[in-house]
Amino acid sequence: MNKETIKKLLEDVKDDKMSIDTAARMLIDLPFTDLGFAKIDNHREIRTGYPEIIYCAGKTEEQVVAIIREMLKKGSSILGTRADKKIFEAVKAICPEAEYHDVARIITVRKKEIKLTDTYITVITAGTSDIPVAEEAAITAQMLGNRVERVFDVGVAGIHRLFASLDVITGAKVIIAIAGMEGALASVVGGLVDKPVIAVPTSVGYGASFGGLSALLSMLNSCASGTAVVNIDNGFGAGYFASMINKLS
Amino acid sequence: MNKETIKKLLEDVKDDKMSIDTAARMLIDLPFTDLGFAKIDNHREIRTGYPEIIYCAGKTEEQVVAIIREMLKKGSSILGTRADKKIFEAVKAICPEAEYHDVARIITVRKKEIKLTDTYITVITAGTSDIPVAEEAAITAQMLGNRVERVFDVGVAGIHRLFASLDVITGAKVIIAIAGMEGALASVVGGLVDKPVIAVPTSVGYGASFGGLSALLSMLNSCASGTAVVNIDNGFGAGYFASMINKLS
Amino acid sequence: MNKETIKKLLEDVKDDKMSIDTAARMLIDLPFTDLGFAKIDNHREIRTGYPEIIYCAGKTEEQVVAIIREMLKKGSSILGTRADKKIFEAVKAICPEAEYHDVARIITVRKKEIKLTDTYITVITAGTSDIPVAEEAAITAQMLGNRVERVFDVGVAGIHRLFASLDVITGAKVIIAIAGMEGALASVVGGLVDKPVIAVPTSVGYGASFGGLSALLSMLNSCASGTAVVNIDNGFGAGYFASMINKLS
Amino acid sequence: MNKETIKKLLEDVKDDKMSIDTAARMLIDLPFTDLGFAKIDNHREIRTGYPEIIYCAGKTEEQVVAIIREMLKKGSSILGTRADKKIFEAVKAICPEAEYHDVARIITVRKKEIKLTDTYITVITAGTSDIPVAEEAAITAQMLGNRVERVFDVGVAGIHRLFASLDVITGAKVIIAIAGMEGALASVVGGLVDKPVIAVPTSVGYGASFGGLSALLSMLNSCASGTAVVNIDNGFGAGYFASMINKLS
Amino acid sequence: MNKETIKKLLEDVKDDKMSIDTAARMLIDLPFTDLGFAKIDNHREIRTGYPEIIYCAGKTEEQVVAIIREMLKKGSSILGTRADKKIFEAVKAICPEAEYHDVARIITVRKKEIKLTDTYITVITAGTSDIPVAEEAAITAQMLGNRVERVFDVGVAGIHRLFASLDVITGAKVIIAIAGMEGALASVVGGLVDKPVIAVPTSVGYGASFGGLSALLSMLNSCASGTAVVNIDNGFGAGYFASMINKLS
Amino acid sequence: MNKETIKKLLEDVKDDKMSIDTAARMLIDLPFTDLGFAKIDNHREIRTGYPEIIYCAGKTEEQVVAIIREMLKKGSSILGTRADKKIFEAVKAICPEAEYHDVARIITVRKKEIKLTDTYITVITAGTSDIPVAEEAAITAQMLGNRVERVFDVGVAGIHRLFASLDVITGAKVIIAIAGMEGALASVVGGLVDKPVIAVPTSVGYGASFGGLSALLSMLNSCASGTAVVNIDNGFGAGYFASMINKLS
Amino acid sequence: MNKETIKKLLEDVKDDKMSIDTAARMLIDLPFTDLGFAKIDNHREIRTGYPEIIYCAGKTEEQVVAIIREMLKKGSSILGTRADKKIFEAVKAICPEAEYHDVARIITVRKKEIKLTDTYITVITAGTSDIPVAEEAAITAQMLGNRVERVFDVGVAGIHRLFASLDVITGAKVIIAIAGMEGALASVVGGLVDKPVIAVPTSVGYGASFGGLSALLSMLNSCASGTAVVNIDNGFGAGYFASMINKLS
Amino acid sequence: MNKETIKKLLEDVKDDKMSIDTAARMLIDLPFTDLGFAKIDNHREIRTGYPEIIYCAGKTEEQVVAIIREMLKKGSSILGTRADKKIFEAVKAICPEAEYHDVARIITVRKKEIKLTDTYITVITAGTSDIPVAEEAAITAQMLGNRVERVFDVGVAGIHRLFASLDVITGAKVIIAIAGMEGALASVVGGLVDKPVIAVPTSVGYGASFGGLSALLSMLNSCASGTAVVNIDNGFGAGYFASMINKLS
Repeated sequence: MNKETIKKLLEDVKDDKMSIDTAARMLIDLPFTDLGFAKIDNHREIRTGYPEIIYCAGKTEEQVVAIIREMLKKGSSILGTRADKKIFEAVKAICPEAEYHDVARIITVRKKEIKLTDTYITVITAGTSDIPVAEEAAITAQMLGNRVERVFDVGVAGIHRLFASLDVITGAKVIIAIAGMEGALASVVGGLVDKPVIAVPTSVGYGASFGGLSALLSMLNSCASGTAVVNIDNGFGAGYFASMINKLS
Repeated sequence: MNKETIKKLLEDVKDDKMSIDTAARMLIDLPFTDLGFAKIDNHREIRTGYPEIIYCAGKTEEQVVAIIREMLKKGSSILGTRADKKIFEAVKAICPEAEYHDVARIITVRKKEIKLTDTYITVITAGTSDIPVAEEAAITAQMLGNRVERVFDVGVAGIHRLFASLDVITGAKVIIAIAGMEGALASVVGGLVDKPVIAVPTSVGYGASFGGLSALLSMLNSCASGTAVVNIDNGFGAGYFASMINKLS
Repeated sequence: MNKETIKKLLEDVKDDKMSIDTAARMLIDLPFTDLGFAKIDNHREIRTGYPEIIYCAGKTEEQVVAIIREMLKKGSSILGTRADKKIFEAVKAICPEAEYHDVARIITVRKKEIKLTDTYITVITAGTSDIPVAEEAAITAQMLGNRVERVFDVGVAGIHRLFASLDVITGAKVIIAIAGMEGALASVVGGLVDKPVIAVPTSVGYGASFGGLSALLSMLNSCASGTAVVNIDNGFGAGYFASMINKLS
Repeated sequence: MNKETIKKLLEDVKDDKMSIDTAARMLIDLPFTDLGFAKIDNHREIRTGYPEIIYCAGKTEEQVVAIIREMLKKGSSILGTRADKKIFEAVKAICPEAEYHDVARIITVRKKEIKLTDTYITVITAGTSDIPVAEEAAITAQMLGNRVERVFDVGVAGIHRLFASLDVITGAKVIIAIAGMEGALASVVGGLVDKPVIAVPTSVGYGASFGGLSALLSMLNSCASGTAVVNIDNGFGAGYFASMINKLS
Repeated sequence: MNKETIKKLLEDVKDDKMSIDTAARMLIDLPFTDLGFAKIDNHREIRTGYPEIIYCAGKTEEQVVAIIREMLKKGSSILGTRADKKIFEAVKAICPEAEYHDVARIITVRKKEIKLTDTYITVITAGTSDIPVAEEAAITAQMLGNRVERVFDVGVAGIHRLFASLDVITGAKVIIAIAGMEGALASVVGGLVDKPVIAVPTSVGYGASFGGLSALLSMLNSCASGTAVVNIDNGFGAGYFASMINKLS
Repeated sequence: MNKETIKKLLEDVKDDKMSIDTAARMLIDLPFTDLGFAKIDNHREIRTGYPEIIYCAGKTEEQVVAIIREMLKKGSSILGTRADKKIFEAVKAICPEAEYHDVARIITVRKKEIKLTDTYITVITAGTSDIPVAEEAAITAQMLGNRVERVFDVGVAGIHRLFASLDVITGAKVIIAIAGMEGALASVVGGLVDKPVIAVPTSVGYGASFGGLSALLSMLNSCASGTAVVNIDNGFGAGYFASMINKLS
Repeated sequence: MNKETIKKLLEDVKDDKMSIDTAARMLIDLPFTDLGFAKIDNHREIRTGYPEIIYCAGKTEEQVVAIIREMLKKGSSILGTRADKKIFEAVKAICPEAEYHDVARIITVRKKEIKLTDTYITVITAGTSDIPVAEEAAITAQMLGNRVERVFDVGVAGIHRLFASLDVITGAKVIIAIAGMEGALASVVGGLVDKPVIAVPTSVGYGASFGGLSALLSMLNSCASGTAVVNIDNGFGAGYFASMINKLS
Repeated sequence: MNKETIKKLLEDVKDDKMSIDTAARMLIDLPFTDLGFAKIDNHREIRTGYPEIIYCAGKTEEQVVAIIREMLKKGSSILGTRADKKIFEAVKAICPEAEYHDVARIITVRKKEIKLTDTYITVITAGTSDIPVAEEAAITAQMLGNRVERVFDVGVAGIHRLFASLDVITGAKVIIAIAGMEGALASVVGGLVDKPVIAVPTSVGYGASFGGLSALLSMLNSCASGTAVVNIDNGFGAGYFASMINKLS
């Protein structure tokens, strides 16, 4: 709703091309579908090829199914995050082509061919236990049209494992570094490469990891420039943010 | 027990209209019923039309049933919050007209017609997952005799959805804004309207939301004047407080 | 900028009463004055009798003076909170009628007669050390046109002091209860009266009061219905919120 | 092992009443029984009438049974805290006279008549949900030989309920005040009576009660003199500490 | 204001020995003096020999002087805690016999001979840096009429120093154990003696002592029965609580 | 030190173009200058036009001067962050062309012409008090060769101020959103634009802002996709990260 | 990869004993086996007699089995920590000689005779509930070739139990002190002996132990010199660290 | 005070070589000097060449001087930590050979030649700002007779700087790794070397470093085995612990 759009609309009103009532409604009725318990944002559709996104945690099975049914009406591709198996079964019942990525806990429905970028995003984890978060990031980025490379279990306690993958890391346009426990991976990677590093703390660990707090603080205090952080276990957010950067021309 | 009441009582004693023993007992025996494990406050009865309220969490089924049985003797309407289905079944057994609002986890018994106010309270949520807290607030307010409007899933990430409901928001006498995660809804609404906004942080979220701490701090630090906050997930408290304001003449 | 305003504006455009450029500018150029480092909100002026408000903490002397100079141009009354003596001296230099309330750390400039409400707000403190926060609340409420009653040093450790002031407390339309340390005052007052209680935790205390955290948590967890909370030491917020309620008709 | 005991022992050695080996062993082998996984303290036996105490949480069924079997050999009375029903069944199998207090989660074995004190301890709770902690305190104190009075559900939100029980509260030699949520009960009671008040925060509550942290901080910051605090939900500790005070002559 | 007092008063009213107005005023006008910014509690006077207590922190010099001037009118002994040297000078100016205990930051005015108890309170510190808190406790207890023994710098890192003072510790009726850093002293003392131990965490330490939080948590979690805790650095509270116990007969 | 560099070096050794000793030293002696107390990283020089960066906080005047003297030898441009005025004076003494940006607390030395990008970074603040952090971000970005637009004091409490600047916000390639208190700005901006948003929480606020914790948690929990967060008050980190993104081709 | 190794390799290249490709690969391809989801570090094998270590928590059964199958190929001894019974059954299926230490939740496979040191490590616990952590430490140390002595349930509340075991404690080369609740054991032991003490806080406790935070802070703030701390419940880390010290010659 | 010593003493008593009084006093009067405010531990003297240690923070100038005067009487070497310049001047006045290490804030008095070990301790810091903590560790270790190597400013953001010093790191018998901010240095070093690593978190940093909490948690959660942690900024503790390990034969 920028100045130009408003000017155009006003000119149409002045020129009697549009009624006052219509114009007023357009200024207020922004595009979303109201299901009562949810208001589905239709903005995203306008940008070609982007899937609709639904965060399933905290929603009932019925709510997720109703939202997805609405999205399917518009022929959208769909990305449902934090979905357990039971929700997937319910979705599958109304949408047989739905796929489930169980490590990532993601439901995807691909309505259009997804063309991947030439440049790529590298997703790194410190440990094996961080893989579910990494897969959430990777599949999100792929559904948004990005080429993704995975490098798992290269934590700093055995730093030679990280160095052995330096090529695929330095070759990326943007890097997602995922670690629990002390979260040192982000700082080390941030110091090694000259690319934006998106750090994802995970809740992997015990005791004084305090559910990911340790890794979170560690990453926020990274002494390496060029690092930014998303919420604990937020693979989706990292994948989305990385996609934004990777797709900038 | 204000000055006037005491004076009257003392005059009655002096005039021999009341025995000393009776008067002493009256000064001390304030109105409640003692069940041993619970002391039911009878104050509320004096104000016409108000239901008795019972917070069910942390009480055993037997305790809730015993308390409600006592309340029913006096013909009170009843509002039981934080009640799971099993408690409701037990209550239903002794009180067939009891109703269960499962989203809100509330038991209600309506003994008298509830006349609603002309002015209304608007209950807003940032997301779909905040609806249980919103329903607790809304049903509480309705049981206390208030007209309530609901606007759900209008979080700030798609602010046009909020703007589309501005009429029903600005028309309210008092607003309840409910949000988890970053809790920004309260500040944005507080900045848009010139009505008291009661902010309810919810435990919706994960990772660094720390069980609602993030939304709580956010709302306490709101840069918008005219906002006050209740406990995390405290829909009841918000509904009660809003009712107090809405019913001020 | 509700539907009606927009319709009227569009009709004016259609009827050639207003140029498209002017209309577009009006739709976008919402009322504020841009000083670069600050954007002064002019909304408040429209509501008669309300002062402009400026939060002085974190602003330089020069910034505060520049903002107030701008406000004075419009003949507004002014309420400057969290202002130290030095800032006041600088303001006084350009506005001789400015007054300083040193306990409350507030600067006021009264350009118009302030007519007080018949109903009143009672401001209660648990201790003597809470008075600065209480004065911030009281003077804010008075500048916004409310009658205010003060009851200080009636903490629950000597509960008879509180009871001795019950008349002035129960007679209020809304109550502001201010306490540091364990913050129990809010719960006790909330249990005694049937009016909205705005609880203000203060940073008064030491050790495990953790800068007001103890009182804050205490107030958020109040077992008394009808209590809502503002930020630690936020006398202004409480005064503003109380004013909103007190002035509801 | 004070100076006198050592002198006596040394004199016995000098006078050949005791061998050097025996004396050395006595100086080192202090009285406890070693089960490998547990070292049972036998100190307590020396003081007549006191039960052996065992904290069952975190111990396996086998460990609890083995410890109690050892205690029974010495004919001790036993107080087992934080014991679930399953542990009780296992104990019952080897000790038929064992009793289970299910609200308090306590196992008791009374081997000797317990003579109660004339003075008494009053145990107060703010709510019904605090009763399990109160019963842990009360039964502990009773097993240690104290008369106990119970006053439950007298939280400050309905302060008249507290006042109605003032006689039984002020008549006590020491008071245990138990509350969750905002924990204000301790301060109010501490301000009303001139007796030592032992405050027990409970984990009753939700949201910003943070598992009892709110009540704990509240009680530590009590503005009432004469209050000391034990760990969250530590009914046993309060009962034991109160017993120490009540039994001082 | 117990039942008997009320009965007597009512009988006086009935028998015309007292006017209704007087009786009503007596029931409400509880004994305190209102200075506006402070309400001085006069309850304490009734108990012979007890000083008036004033917590000076957070009060202005003028407020402290005004309160003490009022107290002096009644010939009370006075105990002013958390008073810096400047406040003392101001008090000294209106009350030449005032004394200053600079380590304890306490002002005392002794109007009556203080008779000490035969039994005594032992105040122990873990380190030299804890002495200011210990002196606050000790002088408080002495002003309240208790004999006090001091044992300083006997922290558990050199446990033989503690053992060397066992006589004076075990001989006490109640013990105050004061420690910062890891606060282990309270548990060790609590395990050694069979007397009530009041644990005072101090803010002595650095880094992960987090202003006394470490010692506070340590003391709350003491594995030794018979320990209760007061606020960080709250020497006064410990001295007052210990006095209550020591003076129980 | 990637595979190609190593291969080339090894080939030189094999072909006797380089001695073994030289090669070994090259493999180990990575490019930095060792001052004992600091090891200056010379990597950055290789990339044309980038300044050397020095974080001045926690370093002595002498250390900063010594480091900068070393940098100047190589003719580098310099960016010194968190520098107070005194440090600047000391630097000025050895480098007269040094400039001081006092709001940002940054020292700059420009040795080469800095060519700015066509695309730009927009730096937004919620309030006036956030400007120092914003200037740190803006000047950092400018020194790294980016065009920067500033939009200050557009917090969500007056959301129309934000909307009035939407053009300059949506036109940016990447946005830095800076806010203290409740930090809602990041979520609102993130929801309005389809560009990467770097959120910077600030320590602006009081009470329950807990030194920026409130804004930090708020931003980490942002319900708007496309947001990543840096440390509290870390304007430099945001500027550097934004530059990385803005300069991606 | 120190200077000597590199020199030797370069000489081999120069002397044509090694091809450039091989050398380059060796410099980069450090020894680990890549399973995709895990990169098994083979460094440890080089040191004779050391087992391969696998942290099982957060890995799926399939992942653990795959990793162990790979390790077995190399004939390594194996130490699998934080393994539940189900994982052990799966491992047992492919490796019949695997043993399960259920208290310690450890899987071991002994492929070589383990020769124990003459010097020993003493593992002490404060309580019975700390034994699982102690066993994790003890079995780890034993698998690494250390003689281990166990002293359990000697918490400071009954300090004579600790003294009775002083011989076996002071005779150790290094001590592991394990405690939950207030964690005082570490300080007391640290003060009694002149050997390195590795303190392990445990999550044993309730209420204000906050999952081990209390013991952790207590141990970090130990007033006894010669104490260092590992993560809450980190028996493995303590056993490994103790082994390093015990095996130093 | 082990079994043998006691036996010998008892034999002497039996054989009349020692009087009962003398023996009793010896068993109780353990070796320390009581100054009232401090009890100086004389244990340390017995071990040749070790200095007396005094922690100066929180002690008054007078107290430090009195303690040191007492120590000097016995001809001890002295190590005074956390001493500011003013305390040093006071000490210098009574002990002219006292030296001040201003970066480390340490006072030393060397009464005996200190013979250094052949093996050495390497002290590493991540940044320049960590040097004061490093110097506290290094000088402590040197005073205790250890050879120390220093490697400063080798944080993981420029990991090649760390690698360039690998020789001096891997050559040490024990390593002290000191870092603020994200504290990743400890994990990286722990992963590179097979020696005990003592990690020291520092309070260097700002914002979400929360006074060293970030580095502390990071180090406690280190994924590298062989790491233990001391308190934030506790250079002394690390130096002392390292010395214990380094001097083990």
